[in-house]
Amino acid sequence: MVDILGIGNAIVDVVARADDTFLSRHDMHKGAMILVDAAQAQAIYAAMPPGQESSGGSAANTCAVAAGLGARVAYIGKVADDQLGTVFAHDIKAAGVAFPSSPLVGGAPTARCLILVTPDGQRTMNTFLGACVTLNEADVDEALVASAAVTYLEGYLFDPPAAQAAFYKAAAAAHAAGKQVALSLSDAFCVNRHRAAFRELVAGHVDILFANETEITSLYEENTFEAAAEATRRDVSLAALTRSEAGSLIVRGAETVEIAAAPATVVDTTGAGDAYAAGFLAAFTAGRTLDICGRLGSLAAAEVIGHYGARPEADLRNMLAAVR
Amino acid sequence: MVDILGIGNAIVDVVARADDTFLSRHDMHKGAMILVDAAQAQAIYAAMPPGQESSGGSAANTCAVAAGLGARVAYIGKVADDQLGTVFAHDIKAAGVAFPSSPLVGGAPTARCLILVTPDGQRTMNTFLGACVTLNEADVDEALVASAAVTYLEGYLFDPPAAQAAFYKAAAAAHAAGKQVALSLSDAFCVNRHRAAFRELVAGHVDILFANETEITSLYEENTFEAAAEATRRDVSLAALTRSEAGSLIVRGAETVEIAAAPATVVDTTGAGDAYAAGFLAAFTAGRTLDICGRLGSLAAAEVIGHYGARPEADLRNMLAAVR
Repeated sequence: MVDILGIGNAIVDVVARADDTFLSRHDMHKGAMILVDAAQAQAIYAAMPPGQESSGGSAANTCAVAAGLGARVAYIGKVADDQLGTVFAHDIKAAGVAFPSSPLVGGAPTARCLILVTPDGQRTMNTFLGACVTLNEADVDEALVASAAVTYLEGYLFDPPAAQAAFYKAAAAAHAAGKQVALSLSDAFCVNRHRAAFRELVAGHVDILFANETEITSLYEENTFEAAAEATRRDVSLAALTRSEAGSLIVRGAETVEIAAAPATVVDTTGAGDAYAAGFLAAFTAGRTLDICGRLGSLAAAEVIGHYGARPEADLRNMLAAVR
Repeated sequence: MVDILGIGNAIVDVVARADDTFLSRHDMHKGAMILVDAAQAQAIYAAMPPGQESSGGSAANTCAVAAGLGARVAYIGKVADDQLGTVFAHDIKAAGVAFPSSPLVGGAPTARCLILVTPDGQRTMNTFLGACVTLNEADVDEALVASAAVTYLEGYLFDPPAAQAAFYKAAAAAHAAGKQVALSLSDAFCVNRHRAAFRELVAGHVDILFANETEITSLYEENTFEAAAEATRRDVSLAALTRSEAGSLIVRGAETVEIAAAPATVVDTTGAGDAYAAGFLAAFTAGRTLDICGRLGSLAAAEVIGHYGARPEADLRNMLAAVR
């Protein structure tokens, strides 16, 4: 019996500070996540400044934050049986998240994401998926899905080919058990790569949608946030749309709730959206109002963007109780 | 031709925040470094909160900071051919340090240090030496030593047994080339383990000694810092003795220079002594006065204790030019 079950790409982050000229020299699009192969990852790493390694992965970050906020959380994702896989498994378990997935033996190494953080706090990500490409239907434990109030899926899962089947299996198992399915669109470039699949998924299989402004306007190919928000309202029963320092907008049927961003010093925006979803879902599965859900999301995001890395550094235990 | 050649245990740090009860529950002595075997390392890691991995190793930290300050630096140390070894090699090269040592193949894994940082900023370290125990004389390139103005050795090197021979070979090669040998005592417990060997080494083979208050009083078994400082003055031609927020004392023959600590917000004291030695030696090998050497040491230490981790986060290039 868990509140939130996350399914995603299990990734170790390598975070380094870089200036804008590093991004342009390596043809990187600031703020985006691109997929790289092993050779590209090696070349980028060789050129990168000294880094700090820490566990990442979008849905895994959400799980770690939600567990810190007091929710009961489990996570499904694929690491390899190597040193970085050990780091990932240690960190998510130490964060209080159940992690039943067995590591891949004798295949690709644990996935890593090479993240360049520019002085403006923006992060630019280069992901080598490694062992994640083997995540498939067999990794989805239907009994675990059926026991979760919300099964949370990251859009990035549409990149490794076999994971889409895992995605649909999890959604079907959740709905068969009368539970809910949440999706984060993850990244505007990811939405571009998989727009048709996402549109079908959102309309037919998702109960709670998380997206930021560029992702949601890309999904519905609308020119304005307002038009995209109305398209979302027609398509999905509940959505939380984030707009960085402009806060977030929650739509549910005819209902609209506007949430202000929590005050924050921007050091590194890595994981901001993941933390927002964590705060939202931790409050939602605790039966709180949409206003509290959005405000806890904003507070959790503010904690994560105030330091380097996507996992929380502060003790979050009393954060939900403090939201009134 | 390099200014500083560091030789030490090549280690990846795993840093986590912990409270004092975690230390007492695991019988850890706050502020100390203890050696643990593979099984102990695994048990401590399993109990630790989520961590951040970054390259460490005392002399390697000193090398990274000195290179950041503009010195020409090389480093000798033993990693394994595994993922953490790749991280270590990447980071020290990306810091601008030449790293000619080949990795150990088919033996123990890369060394790691499990570091618990308490809310007071103190760090408590549990080191699994792994591949470092194979560092030996054969790893010391005498031509590289002869080309270095200062060969810098960490006291921790006395823990892995074969490294003492590497130590003496490096010292002999440096002096045969008319160059200088520097030693850091590293840790009061390390001094206790190897006091007789350190006394003989300092009196007979070391030109520049770095130690903090507890290390130097332990070395000479004196009750006061002043008595230990006078023993140091008789024993070694130049020494820099650090006293945390009380600054540092430099003794050279009859000469005594007192240095104030640079203002700092204490977040994590990991690497403070390493950074002090880096600042001192970067100025020393640039031909600056002892006063400037000490002040650059204090400034470098202040940068490192202001954030988590032992490697610098700020751009240090202009720090030496700014010391007047």
